[in-house]
Amino acid sequence: MSKKLKVDGEDAHAEIQAQCEEMQRVQSKLEDVEAEFDKKVLELQSEFNVKKTPLYIERNAIISKIPNFWYIAFTHSDIMRMLLHRDDEHIFKHITSLVVEEKEDIKSGFKITVTFSENSFFTNRELWKELTFTDTAETKIDQSGVDWKPNQGPNKASNAAVGEKRDRDEESFFNAFFNNADKDHVDMANIIKDDLWPNPLRYYTGEVEDDFDEEEEDFDDDFDEEEEVEEAEEDEAAE
Amino acid sequence: MSKKLKVDGEDAHAEIQAQCEEMQRVQSKLEDVEAEFDKKVLELQSEFNVKKTPLYIERNAIISKIPNFWYIAFTHSDIMRMLLHRDDEHIFKHITSLVVEEKEDIKSGFKITVTFSENSFFTNRELWKELTFTDTAETKIDQSGVDWKPNQGPNKASNAAVGEKRDRDEESFFNAFFNNADKDHVDMANIIKDDLWPNPLRYYTGEVEDDFDEEEEDFDDDFDEEEEVEEAEEDEAAE
Repeated sequence: MSKKLKVDGEDAHAEIQAQCEEMQRVQSKLEDVEAEFDKKVLELQSEFNVKKTPLYIERNAIISKIPNFWYIAFTHSDIMRMLLHRDDEHIFKHITSLVVEEKEDIKSGFKITVTFSENSFFTNRELWKELTFTDTAETKIDQSGVDWKPNQGPNKASNAAVGEKRDRDEESFFNAFFNNADKDHVDMANIIKDDLWPNPLRYYTGEVEDDFDEEEEDFDDDFDEEEEVEEAEEDEAAE
Repeated sequence: MSKKLKVDGEDAHAEIQAQCEEMQRVQSKLEDVEAEFDKKVLELQSEFNVKKTPLYIERNAIISKIPNFWYIAFTHSDIMRMLLHRDDEHIFKHITSLVVEEKEDIKSGFKITVTFSENSFFTNRELWKELTFTDTAETKIDQSGVDWKPNQGPNKASNAAVGEKRDRDEESFFNAFFNNADKDHVDMANIIKDDLWPNPLRYYTGEVEDDFDEEEEDFDDDFDEEEEVEEAEEDEAAE
């Protein structure tokens, strides 16, 4: 195209090489500016997390006064309700707090911690799941595990009972979520962090009931949602 | 569940109602903190855009010294090359600058402006495309249009020539991209903004050649990429 290239190939090549090096120098400066920006945003995030912490504590104190708050919030989410075993309801009664904490560098992960009052199901007072996003774009999954009491959890006698109609998953949510590093539960952890935690009141009141159908197509199936909601609400009213 | 509900239903209901209102008050405070955070991030973005502007200007000055820089960069991208008409090469020679500008509130969109030296193809000295993200999550698409000179662009005689092998799109990239508000070109505009603009040198040198195969599955097809790259490079070397 350019006559320069034709007339004086080698010089032109050297000249282009020099321009590319010059441009690389500018690119490095742009990268430095980007890195400085990212650092400032992280500082801002830490600063605002500090501002939000007392509000989350205040919110938790209010939630603790509302009977079965987290159970009702969970059952008002189509996707989360799908993961609940009927018996989980009794475990939910013992939740004293549910907390999502982003790591200081929020890019690197978060931890969900659920605390419980003394109960007949497991010996843990705290169950937690932690996701760590590594530099290689992998997600490292850690969790507390559940120390079920004898004849509870996966070994519960009634799990093997004959003739009992089971319309939810055979496995306790608590066992599934806090006892293994299954990749499937990464989505669930993200839903808790991004959807439930920012405004759990909207779940408790049922305001966001159908959000997932629109937003999370991956979870769309022919699960009979209306029936399940009614059932959960009847359960709630009956007790 | 709670005995309170059973023993004294109405009072319990009023109490829960009061707790929900209290929680809503806390949620509003959390939203205020989030809004303040978003505002600070936008301020930071504006501040850093100001820092980057002179570097982009410096980069553009270097690019203008490299023959056919933008043409070569475009042809090193599988997806962008697919949109190029063979005749576009001659138009690319006249590019004097390509600039992507994010709007001050970068959430609201960006504008791609390409300027040209006097040429025999169109009368415009500037072609631009602007995407505006509206509050209703729609993307508004505006563009300069191309004022083709007589017997150029879509009306070019050779477009109808018989017996000429055409291995690229029959329509000029410039016509397709700057002359209509087709949603298909929103993806293209985003690729220019997010992939090409941040580091065009990587495209010029061919370093990122195969990136799109991994990242942009939507554009994956059985287009014979290798052959096209070689052809583009031969064209380049021949002139």
